[in-house]
Amino acid sequence: MVDSVDASRAGARLTVDLGAIRANYRHLASMSRASCAAVMKADAYGLGMEQVAPALALEGCTMFFTAHLQEAIALRQLVPEHCTIYVLHGPPPGTARDFFQYDLTPVLNDPGQLREWRFLAHKLGRELPAAIQFDTGMSRMGFAPADLGALNELGGVRPALVMSHLACADEPEHPMNAAQRRRFDTLRALLPGVPASLANSSGVFLGAEYHYDLLRPGAALYGINPQPGRPNPLQQAVSLHARIVQVRSVCEGDVIGYGGHHVCVGERRIATVAVGYADGWQRSLSGRGQAAIDGVIVPIVGRVSMDSMGIDVTEIPAERLAPGAEVELMGATLPVDEVAALAGTIGYEVLTRLGSRFHRQHI
Amino acid sequence: MVDSVDASRAGARLTVDLGAIRANYRHLASMSRASCAAVMKADAYGLGMEQVAPALALEGCTMFFTAHLQEAIALRQLVPEHCTIYVLHGPPPGTARDFFQYDLTPVLNDPGQLREWRFLAHKLGRELPAAIQFDTGMSRMGFAPADLGALNELGGVRPALVMSHLACADEPEHPMNAAQRRRFDTLRALLPGVPASLANSSGVFLGAEYHYDLLRPGAALYGINPQPGRPNPLQQAVSLHARIVQVRSVCEGDVIGYGGHHVCVGERRIATVAVGYADGWQRSLSGRGQAAIDGVIVPIVGRVSMDSMGIDVTEIPAERLAPGAEVELMGATLPVDEVAALAGTIGYEVLTRLGSRFHRQHI
Repeated sequence: MVDSVDASRAGARLTVDLGAIRANYRHLASMSRASCAAVMKADAYGLGMEQVAPALALEGCTMFFTAHLQEAIALRQLVPEHCTIYVLHGPPPGTARDFFQYDLTPVLNDPGQLREWRFLAHKLGRELPAAIQFDTGMSRMGFAPADLGALNELGGVRPALVMSHLACADEPEHPMNAAQRRRFDTLRALLPGVPASLANSSGVFLGAEYHYDLLRPGAALYGINPQPGRPNPLQQAVSLHARIVQVRSVCEGDVIGYGGHHVCVGERRIATVAVGYADGWQRSLSGRGQAAIDGVIVPIVGRVSMDSMGIDVTEIPAERLAPGAEVELMGATLPVDEVAALAGTIGYEVLTRLGSRFHRQHI
Repeated sequence: MVDSVDASRAGARLTVDLGAIRANYRHLASMSRASCAAVMKADAYGLGMEQVAPALALEGCTMFFTAHLQEAIALRQLVPEHCTIYVLHGPPPGTARDFFQYDLTPVLNDPGQLREWRFLAHKLGRELPAAIQFDTGMSRMGFAPADLGALNELGGVRPALVMSHLACADEPEHPMNAAQRRRFDTLRALLPGVPASLANSSGVFLGAEYHYDLLRPGAALYGINPQPGRPNPLQQAVSLHARIVQVRSVCEGDVIGYGGHHVCVGERRIATVAVGYADGWQRSLSGRGQAAIDGVIVPIVGRVSMDSMGIDVTEIPAERLAPGAEVELMGATLPVDEVAALAGTIGYEVLTRLGSRFHRQHI
């Protein structure tokens, strides 16, 4: 979705390993007898739906999920015709015809969305497929207990899938998981014989009783650890290398960056690299984040600026630090989950906020 | 730089008030006898360089600053030929010819960058203009004390501007401000007669002795308060309205969002809106951020998800909450600086991270 910036002019290089994403898909699909879909929302979690979707179609993936209608329209041109594209937010008012025109399947979350889709089916005099989402405990999207009566009047809407979403799947011991599964079993009995889906990435790792007929991983495809605190069974799919703009020597007492909060102790060498918070490198990484040079971890010092930040490269040989040389911000030494932990957030936010000023390459 | 998403299909509507940006430019320019440039980096702080740059050119702005070469190349097509475009990061190795070809003026930050530009001037047998940046205390970019000897060998490089950047201008009482100004005065004496620039947005408000020949506001143009803690003399330039996807009633004890951390007290009505952290609505706003409906402030409840979040709309009349109806996330009731404070960051980061899934309109 984002035009790649010419390598020589860009401040950083983002590499997406399509082979790793394909391997992660195979790994997840092999964990269950259920089918395996792929979640493509937010431009494939920031990694480029245009490249990721066809790569997964080559692995045999035939079911894709987006959040927004607009994302699904773009996706329609990227995968073979026989693939099913679900839109998690359902049809915004007045857009049912767009769904039909682009062969998209809405996830219906409430009686109003059902009504829109049923109305179009009636008008066209044909059956229209849909996923029915139940809210089993997140209070976010899906049919609530009070809405269930509407499911008695499906009209021309054919339920192709029943689904729900887990709130705490990344905490395997959390009682919400079993509670949501039990509620899901009760609710899906209202539409017997319809294929069912409950497991997001972390849900896949909760065990077979969470798999039903369709897995819906997103994060795990892109290398985010679905089981925080345990070894990550998936491959890293993304790396980010920033260019050095310049290197300077600073003395005892010199300050670095905005606000003057970082004061140097002793003589240090500071490299300014051309990535900042406007590139999604969060400001919360100020004085906490890390970079890596040939596997050696070095600290981000001072505040992250809009377009640049400083790293302390005193321990790195000077000849490695020429302007234009690259520094790893994320990759083999610094996995996405570690970057996220240092920023005080989750890998999902790190990936989806990766900026548009990078040179992007898919390998 | 970002294609706008069709209004009926988008989860939110971002409105950029070009009139407010122009008024802010006029206000800033009127504060000084110095000329007034405009900072365009990061796609005009996320608000759309393609629209903002021509609007400011109409106000008589003839000097623009970008961070990266690539931004400057895009900007060259947007403003009249006589406008000067400075590139703050200077020329990455091997790109000096691009600067010449697109009539861009590098900000030279160290002897290596000076050498690149001087070499091209020699090769072309002509004078080439440049800004010379001094580091006066941020240890980020610009000539350091040890580098100053290189300025004795400018060759065909003609200094068109000497500049530096203030680290603490948003804290008027900070001793760094006067210290940087004194250092700047000492350093610019090395290149007598060259126009000088020190003031970023907040620097403009530090007084005339910081103005020199050229002001370089960015943030203030876009409505960010240059004087935190005091009344904002600038106009808000951006508003963000999210669509309601669905509304549900929840009961005592129901949980909302990921992790199950928000537990309802009493019966509440929760609206799910179609903006999440993938849209730059930071996850740090979970349980802390706000929305506004017809001027009434309501809280974000539970964790911000990737593509949506919940707000508590119990106090709002039900007829105002139809799916597709809009909720203010930023605008007249919620200025960008307040959003930033709730997210634990600064307005700069809020604006530059605004996502690409919005319907964007410039008025």
